[in-house]
Amino acid sequence: MHRFERDDLKLSRPRAFVESRAIRFQDIDAAGIIFYPRVLEMFHDAYGAFLAFAGCPLPEVLQSGTWLAPVRHAEADYFKPMRFGDRVAVEICRAHVDESEATLGYRIARAPGGEVCAVGQVVHTFVDRATFKRTPIPDPVRRALEHLESAS
Amino acid sequence: MHRFERDDLKLSRPRAFVESRAIRFQDIDAAGIIFYPRVLEMFHDAYGAFLAFAGCPLPEVLQSGTWLAPVRHAEADYFKPMRFGDRVAVEICRAHVDESEATLGYRIARAPGGEVCAVGQVVHTFVDRATFKRTPIPDPVRRALEHLESAS
Amino acid sequence: MHRFERDDLKLSRPRAFVESRAIRFQDIDAAGIIFYPRVLEMFHDAYGAFLAFAGCPLPEVLQSGTWLAPVRHAEADYFKPMRFGDRVAVEICRAHVDESEATLGYRIARAPGGEVCAVGQVVHTFVDRATFKRTPIPDPVRRALEHLESAS
Amino acid sequence: MHRFERDDLKLSRPRAFVESRAIRFQDIDAAGIIFYPRVLEMFHDAYGAFLAFAGCPLPEVLQSGTWLAPVRHAEADYFKPMRFGDRVAVEICRAHVDESEATLGYRIARAPGGEVCAVGQVVHTFVDRATFKRTPIPDPVRRALEHLESAS
Repeated sequence: MHRFERDDLKLSRPRAFVESRAIRFQDIDAAGIIFYPRVLEMFHDAYGAFLAFAGCPLPEVLQSGTWLAPVRHAEADYFKPMRFGDRVAVEICRAHVDESEATLGYRIARAPGGEVCAVGQVVHTFVDRATFKRTPIPDPVRRALEHLESAS
Repeated sequence: MHRFERDDLKLSRPRAFVESRAIRFQDIDAAGIIFYPRVLEMFHDAYGAFLAFAGCPLPEVLQSGTWLAPVRHAEADYFKPMRFGDRVAVEICRAHVDESEATLGYRIARAPGGEVCAVGQVVHTFVDRATFKRTPIPDPVRRALEHLESAS
Repeated sequence: MHRFERDDLKLSRPRAFVESRAIRFQDIDAAGIIFYPRVLEMFHDAYGAFLAFAGCPLPEVLQSGTWLAPVRHAEADYFKPMRFGDRVAVEICRAHVDESEATLGYRIARAPGGEVCAVGQVVHTFVDRATFKRTPIPDPVRRALEHLESAS
Repeated sequence: MHRFERDDLKLSRPRAFVESRAIRFQDIDAAGIIFYPRVLEMFHDAYGAFLAFAGCPLPEVLQSGTWLAPVRHAEADYFKPMRFGDRVAVEICRAHVDESEATLGYRIARAPGGEVCAVGQVVHTFVDRATFKRTPIPDPVRRALEHLESAS
C-alpha cells in the first residue's frame, strides 16, 4: 500500500484537480471549528467530482458499472482550524497508481496556493462488482490519475 | 393525512416509547446549538428502535421484508435550544393509524416528564416493496402503534 | 405563525432564489434514497446562500451581528424519491414576513420548473443576540424576502 | 508524533474502553455500506464517552475547562464492510502518551474479540485554551490513558 509523505502533500503542485467550496454551518462542531471527519467528506466530494471529470460519474458506476472502489485506508493531518464560511480549495494533488489500487493525495488550502489547512490521502482498492476480487483500475480512471502525476 | 396539534404533542402521555440520549459533539452547528435537522434524525433513530421493539427490526425489513414505509411528511417545532451534552428523552408519544398510513408523534424533553425542547410528527406511507403500491400496515407494527395510543 | 399550503408550495413562481446541486453519495440512507432530514439541510444551505445574496452572510452575522434567527418550526413534504447523483434545483419560492418572524417556503424540483420532489417551509424568529428578545427583521433580510414575494 | 502499527491495532488487548453500538440507517452511503468518514465519527463518540469515564466530560471541558485537545492527525484502515444494523464494539485499545500529545488507538470488531472491521488512530495535541500554546495533558486524562496501556 503506497503512502505519501505528509510534508510532500503540503507542497503546491503543477497539476491538481480543484474544487472550491465554503465550510458549511453544519460542519462545525461544539468546539467551534470543523468536525474533523468532515474533512474526509470533503475529500470524498472532490473524488466524486474528479470521477465525473474523468468520464466515470460515480452514480453511473454504481448503477451499471462492473467495478467498485472501496476505501482501504484514509487519513488526514490538520494544520489550521477551518471555521464556518471559510472558503477553501480542495485539491486532489497526488496519485500513486498500482495495478488494482490507487492512493490519492489531498490538500486543502485557503485558496489555490494559499495557506494549507489540511492534507490527507485515501487508498482505494478496485474490485469486480460481482466477485469482489481485485480487478485492474478502469482505463479512464487510470488515465486521469496518471495525468495528475505526469507533470511532477 | 393526519396531523396532530402541536400543543397536544407537548403534553406528557401515559404511554410512550422512550429513548434516552445525549446531544452529540457533531450535532452542534456554527450557532452553538443543535442543528435543527438533527432533531429529525433523533426522531428516526427512535423510530428504528421502536420497530425493533415491535418485532420488525428495520435492517431485516430492508433485507427481506415485503414492505417499505417511506416518509411522506415530517415536521418539528423547536421550543428550547439543545446544546452539546444535554441529556434528553426522545419519546414516540402519539400514533394515528390508518389503513396504509401512520402519523407518529414525537416529543423531546430534558427527561421523561421534564421541560419540552421540541415536538414533531412524521407520516409514513406503507407500500409494497415490489410494486410501490399502498399496502396495509403490517400487523406487528400496527399493534405496537395502537398500543401506544390505547391508554389515551 | 404563518404556514403555507402544501399545494401552493408546489407551484412554480415568477421569482425564486435557486441553488442547483446534486444529491451526494453520503446523503443516501440504507433504503437507497435521500435520508429525509437531509432535505432540510438542503433548505438550510439555500437559506445561507440567500442571506449572502441579501448582503447578510451568515458567518459575518454570527461573528459580529446583533441578531440571531433561530428556527421555530420546520417541515417538509416528500413526493418523489431523490437518489444519488440526481440534479435538483432548491428554490426559496415563498416568503411571509411579519414584524419579527418570517416563514420561508421551499421547493425542490428536478430542474427549475420540472418535476417537484419535495416542498417545505421553515419559520425563523428574529431575536436580539444579547437579550434573546424578539427584534424586528433586519432591513436587508426583509427587503430580500419581500422582493421574492412582490411578483406574486 | 507517535503512530501505531496497523497490525498491532488489530490485536485484542487485555484492557480496552468499549462502546457497543449498531450501524445507523443514515450512516450508510449510496454503495450500501458505512460511509467511511462515519467510522471516524464512531471513534470520536467513543472518545467522548472515554473522557466522561475519566472524569473530564467534554461538554464541561468546553464550557469551563482551561484546555482543548484539537486533532492533529486521524486515520483508519477498513477490513470488512459494515452494513446497516450491524452490531459492533468500538474499542479504545491503545494509548501512547507524551508530554502534551497523545495517540489513541481504535479497533472496531463485530463483538469484543470478534472479527475486526476497522482500526484507526487519532492524535490529539493538548493546548491552553487562552493562548493555544501546548500544555501538559491534564492529570485525569493522562491517568486514564496510561491505565489502558499498563496491562500490555
